[in-house]
Amino acid sequence: MKAFVTGGAGFIGSTLTDRLISAGHDVVVYDNFSTGKEEFLREALASGRVTVTRGDVLDQSLLTASMRGCDTVFHIAANADVRYGLTNPRRDVDQNTLATFHVLEAMRANGIGRIVFSSTGSIYGEPDVFPTPEDAPFPVQTSLYGASKLAGEGLISAYCEGYGFRGVIFRFVSILGERYSHGHVFDFVRSLRADPTRLTVLGNGQQRKSYLYVGDCVEAMLLGLDRAGGKVNIFNLGADEYCEVTDSVGWICDRMGVRPRIEFTGGERGWIGDSPFIFLDCTRLRSLGWKPTLSIRDGVIRTVDFLQAHPWLLEARA
Amino acid sequence: MKAFVTGGAGFIGSTLTDRLISAGHDVVVYDNFSTGKEEFLREALASGRVTVTRGDVLDQSLLTASMRGCDTVFHIAANADVRYGLTNPRRDVDQNTLATFHVLEAMRANGIGRIVFSSTGSIYGEPDVFPTPEDAPFPVQTSLYGASKLAGEGLISAYCEGYGFRGVIFRFVSILGERYSHGHVFDFVRSLRADPTRLTVLGNGQQRKSYLYVGDCVEAMLLGLDRAGGKVNIFNLGADEYCEVTDSVGWICDRMGVRPRIEFTGGERGWIGDSPFIFLDCTRLRSLGWKPTLSIRDGVIRTVDFLQAHPWLLEARA
Repeated sequence: MKAFVTGGAGFIGSTLTDRLISAGHDVVVYDNFSTGKEEFLREALASGRVTVTRGDVLDQSLLTASMRGCDTVFHIAANADVRYGLTNPRRDVDQNTLATFHVLEAMRANGIGRIVFSSTGSIYGEPDVFPTPEDAPFPVQTSLYGASKLAGEGLISAYCEGYGFRGVIFRFVSILGERYSHGHVFDFVRSLRADPTRLTVLGNGQQRKSYLYVGDCVEAMLLGLDRAGGKVNIFNLGADEYCEVTDSVGWICDRMGVRPRIEFTGGERGWIGDSPFIFLDCTRLRSLGWKPTLSIRDGVIRTVDFLQAHPWLLEARA
Repeated sequence: MKAFVTGGAGFIGSTLTDRLISAGHDVVVYDNFSTGKEEFLREALASGRVTVTRGDVLDQSLLTASMRGCDTVFHIAANADVRYGLTNPRRDVDQNTLATFHVLEAMRANGIGRIVFSSTGSIYGEPDVFPTPEDAPFPVQTSLYGASKLAGEGLISAYCEGYGFRGVIFRFVSILGERYSHGHVFDFVRSLRADPTRLTVLGNGQQRKSYLYVGDCVEAMLLGLDRAGGKVNIFNLGADEYCEVTDSVGWICDRMGVRPRIEFTGGERGWIGDSPFIFLDCTRLRSLGWKPTLSIRDGVIRTVDFLQAHPWLLEARA
């Protein structure tokens, strides 16, 4: 396959790029390097099977030209800063909804009909059913991030129906692991390195969340693409367990060898639009033969180790 | 109330404008007159309670300036040409998704927090449950129209959650009645006036559809706005019956006194993305006290009479 990976220099995109190369594929990475990092592509570039274009997914003509000759698009680029939707709503609309439209139009212009999309469990809003299956009751959106990703899913599905595309959509839980560069583990590790005596936790710490190790996530994407036979294929992608934020805090502190005083900001949610309980039913993907190799706890610990070994990443966003 | 009605010169928007005025409200109509008609606003303008701005919902600064001083927004402007999504996908994205984002941003800039939105039953794609309730299993989108409207719904819901807006979202079936200016009754009447001996019907004619009379639609919107107490309120809006396309053809031909030879283009769907069965469960809105006054058959007949009495409308699009 000749794969086109938007956001291919980012956390998940670069891990996917490495995996595609190791499986013998060629990759075109397309990234604006707003959060992506050249460092993450070092091994991939050494393989000689990767070309990199520095460009924005909103630049339709560059995107279309760069995609030429590819047969499969992994659309991973996104505004993944879930928490800040309300300070800049245009960013979610541009980077998650319009960007997906641009990717689809570039595919159509190039005659490419296979797309893999990183959606999110946030599109379930605050569901009533746990674990939440893909065909849960039609949810009400609670975050701009979720709404903007749902819009992307809808466009992809309509292109599959209308233009004969084949789509594989994954609704991710939060992803952890090497190259992880934003999210609660990042924030906690950075804070504890600066001051190991205290830690502020958003909400009451009892938010229940599910996480998945990035290696398991990338394997799932390739397996789903390979084995899903439908026109539009939608898969939840997460661990079959969840933890409370305080569990995660405990694992992080143990690994770092610190015993901070924990201060909770209070409330059931960490921020407006934060879902207090995310736990996805991943039976559909598991029935195709996928299963995660790391527990949430092991994923958190591996992430802590990675961040401790790469302090420049923590400083880059300080 | 001082209402701001996008698409206020159109079929549904102008009917709503008339109804708002007769209830003693003031109205600002905002319309680009791409399908809206000055003729539809004649009575409203005579009341002295309407101001009209000719502008596009994509013009953020004009939209924001025009909305000043209003307290409730009825966002009715849309690309309603469901069938042509695939010839111009950007139109659905611009006119239905981005336009809704612009309306929300204009509201935020003006401190307006009440929005009524005309969504569509098309967002259910091809559901398995009939009549289809609002919390049907999470659907897969089958048309750009549906996908672009679902994106609008998601943004509105996220603004309600994030900025304290109150939203009332109606998922319309096809609307019929006076000022109706596109859709199957329009096409059939125009065709039969040109040649009463034959009629081409898209699909096999057995598509099952639900329709609602525009007067009942407008009453429902005002009642829903008045009585729905939640932050995000989502209502199906349709008749509690459906008909086959061939039923509708029969009523139209009877009313026009013609007996054409019917030619079916064949297939279960009239076009790609056409849902072969639309029938919404409207229990939620009915439980607030709303019910339609006209049957589908009576709505179709009234529409035929209106079109026959206003042939300039048929010619305007010929």
